[in-house]
Amino acid sequence: MTDTVDFPRPERPSGWLSQADIERARGWLPILYVDAVPVRVDDSGDVIAVGILLRVTPEGVMSRALVSGRVMYHERVRDALVRHIEKDLGPMALPQIPSSPQPFTVAEYFPTPGVTAYHDPRQHAVSLAYIVPVAGDCTPQQDALDLAWLTPEEVTSEQVQVEMAGGTGTLLRQAMAHVGRLH
Amino acid sequence: MTDTVDFPRPERPSGWLSQADIERARGWLPILYVDAVPVRVDDSGDVIAVGILLRVTPEGVMSRALVSGRVMYHERVRDALVRHIEKDLGPMALPQIPSSPQPFTVAEYFPTPGVTAYHDPRQHAVSLAYIVPVAGDCTPQQDALDLAWLTPEEVTSEQVQVEMAGGTGTLLRQAMAHVGRLH
Amino acid sequence: MTDTVDFPRPERPSGWLSQADIERARGWLPILYVDAVPVRVDDSGDVIAVGILLRVTPEGVMSRALVSGRVMYHERVRDALVRHIEKDLGPMALPQIPSSPQPFTVAEYFPTPGVTAYHDPRQHAVSLAYIVPVAGDCTPQQDALDLAWLTPEEVTSEQVQVEMAGGTGTLLRQAMAHVGRLH
Amino acid sequence: MTDTVDFPRPERPSGWLSQADIERARGWLPILYVDAVPVRVDDSGDVIAVGILLRVTPEGVMSRALVSGRVMYHERVRDALVRHIEKDLGPMALPQIPSSPQPFTVAEYFPTPGVTAYHDPRQHAVSLAYIVPVAGDCTPQQDALDLAWLTPEEVTSEQVQVEMAGGTGTLLRQAMAHVGRLH
Repeated sequence: MTDTVDFPRPERPSGWLSQADIERARGWLPILYVDAVPVRVDDSGDVIAVGILLRVTPEGVMSRALVSGRVMYHERVRDALVRHIEKDLGPMALPQIPSSPQPFTVAEYFPTPGVTAYHDPRQHAVSLAYIVPVAGDCTPQQDALDLAWLTPEEVTSEQVQVEMAGGTGTLLRQAMAHVGRLH
Repeated sequence: MTDTVDFPRPERPSGWLSQADIERARGWLPILYVDAVPVRVDDSGDVIAVGILLRVTPEGVMSRALVSGRVMYHERVRDALVRHIEKDLGPMALPQIPSSPQPFTVAEYFPTPGVTAYHDPRQHAVSLAYIVPVAGDCTPQQDALDLAWLTPEEVTSEQVQVEMAGGTGTLLRQAMAHVGRLH
Repeated sequence: MTDTVDFPRPERPSGWLSQADIERARGWLPILYVDAVPVRVDDSGDVIAVGILLRVTPEGVMSRALVSGRVMYHERVRDALVRHIEKDLGPMALPQIPSSPQPFTVAEYFPTPGVTAYHDPRQHAVSLAYIVPVAGDCTPQQDALDLAWLTPEEVTSEQVQVEMAGGTGTLLRQAMAHVGRLH
Repeated sequence: MTDTVDFPRPERPSGWLSQADIERARGWLPILYVDAVPVRVDDSGDVIAVGILLRVTPEGVMSRALVSGRVMYHERVRDALVRHIEKDLGPMALPQIPSSPQPFTVAEYFPTPGVTAYHDPRQHAVSLAYIVPVAGDCTPQQDALDLAWLTPEEVTSEQVQVEMAGGTGTLLRQAMAHVGRLH
């Protein structure tokens, strides 16, 4: 769950909330997110590689992450997907956003560990998760140090799983299960 | 989209928001909802009837509605489904909550009409929509005047569709499409 | 349901069936099919057009159809999708085959009308149905006279629906429901 | 993939195939199957146990299996699910057959190992896979020695996985991923 830079709201809401108000909202309401699993596919649509971001957390710990972020007020889910993929993978990624709004799963990140398989100490985030094939050039942006393309076998390996925080390793295995590439 | 009575939060958040704050949040953040389409099924799982609530809106207009409501802070989506079905259909409905969190669609209710097929003048609500078979006795609760069990043919008829506000008629047809009962 | 030209089997089965045997199998076993709904999408994945084939039936009747065909022995479902799309839309269609094998619905075409919404007088066919965005040039092949790109509103209109045989009109409306474009 | 006892066809097809013909059809056509993962759920629909059959293969090897079997000519997929669940779990299982025909995945069992994650030496079987909550008493039937109710953690453990043949262990993990219980 990353939420680095959000572009301006499409329209200024009349009821303005300050940053302090947002922080309070995070302790009061579930916050809507999207998670995207960027993949390379062959001509038959079979997943051959998965894009994983390498980040440094605010605490200075290296961690692997998916493309993820908040859905803004008055923003469609599909537009949030486009925005966060561009934010993390750059403007030339050429993502194939799903035509259906049906996510492959819904990941519920609770501030309390153990309620679900997902955990986010900052907030209760509910994330719609999608597989997103990308056909273009991907270059890590912002705070991401690197983007690694790993095979389905690699991303579900113990070595990669331990580097994914907050249950995103589980989400990744769910994604591979959904595309028939869980081994 | 109804949001009548919400039971107490499982734990008191430290950052308390007043009713005024909630109203402001509604103008700032997308609010997470669930929509449930209560159905009666036969032994093969085939949908034979759909439960539709008859309500009177605050403006005094009669309207047909689905079971719907907000997901609370620190509440799982499946628990929100249980709570809202009990709220609207009573404690003896015996709902069969889906084992998978994958909704059949995601309905995005925008305060501005025309952005999507769904509209809610009060807020930007994003609703996870599920088909929920109910096996027990259903009795309309709270502000619902009646609960009608209609056939799939009836709920997709023009006559019923015009009585469903905010795009819930479309959502109902999507539900019937998903269960293979769109005619 | 069309099944015009099937390319050679990937490997010659030892138990060869003659054309007469296939005809007998059609009266004995459900036959596995795929249905593809070719769509044009915008940068957000939103469906803006649907590709419909115009065919002449063996009886000389004009009819609108989806891309459809049989899954061969020892052929993956995703390869059958590639093959039938190429067969009907030509080699330059650049289809984006779904990465997940989960179809949006399963259409059960019965030889007896009325068992389901789908009907195929020749056989009991069970078809896995997928939305397939196509990014390239599509040119109708074989027995198709024309390929028309219609809006989601047009394909669900009464005028188009009546020209689609065997329940494919219903399947098309289910497809539009799945992508959130049923109006 | 088991296919023990199939009840009589709903109607006698005109083109009769002998057992030898069926064997030949198995070397010629993909055969349509259903796989059912029987589960116990709590009041919120959360999966708390998974029913696994213990069988002895024709070769005398003990093996764990899911409920599985062929879809007959002129039989609906949902009726095939009812039939095979009754065949394997007995007449008092009270299965909650899914209202939607959308499977959580499609398992393609190839006679050649390695084409997909699934393998069936006898045939090319394509199986629609569903999660099926059962509310009643289950008693193993026919050739099943035992029915074990295991936790989601247990069924995805290495110990159980190695006892599941033909890729059904993978299918089981996909099922747990779909219901949010893959650990």
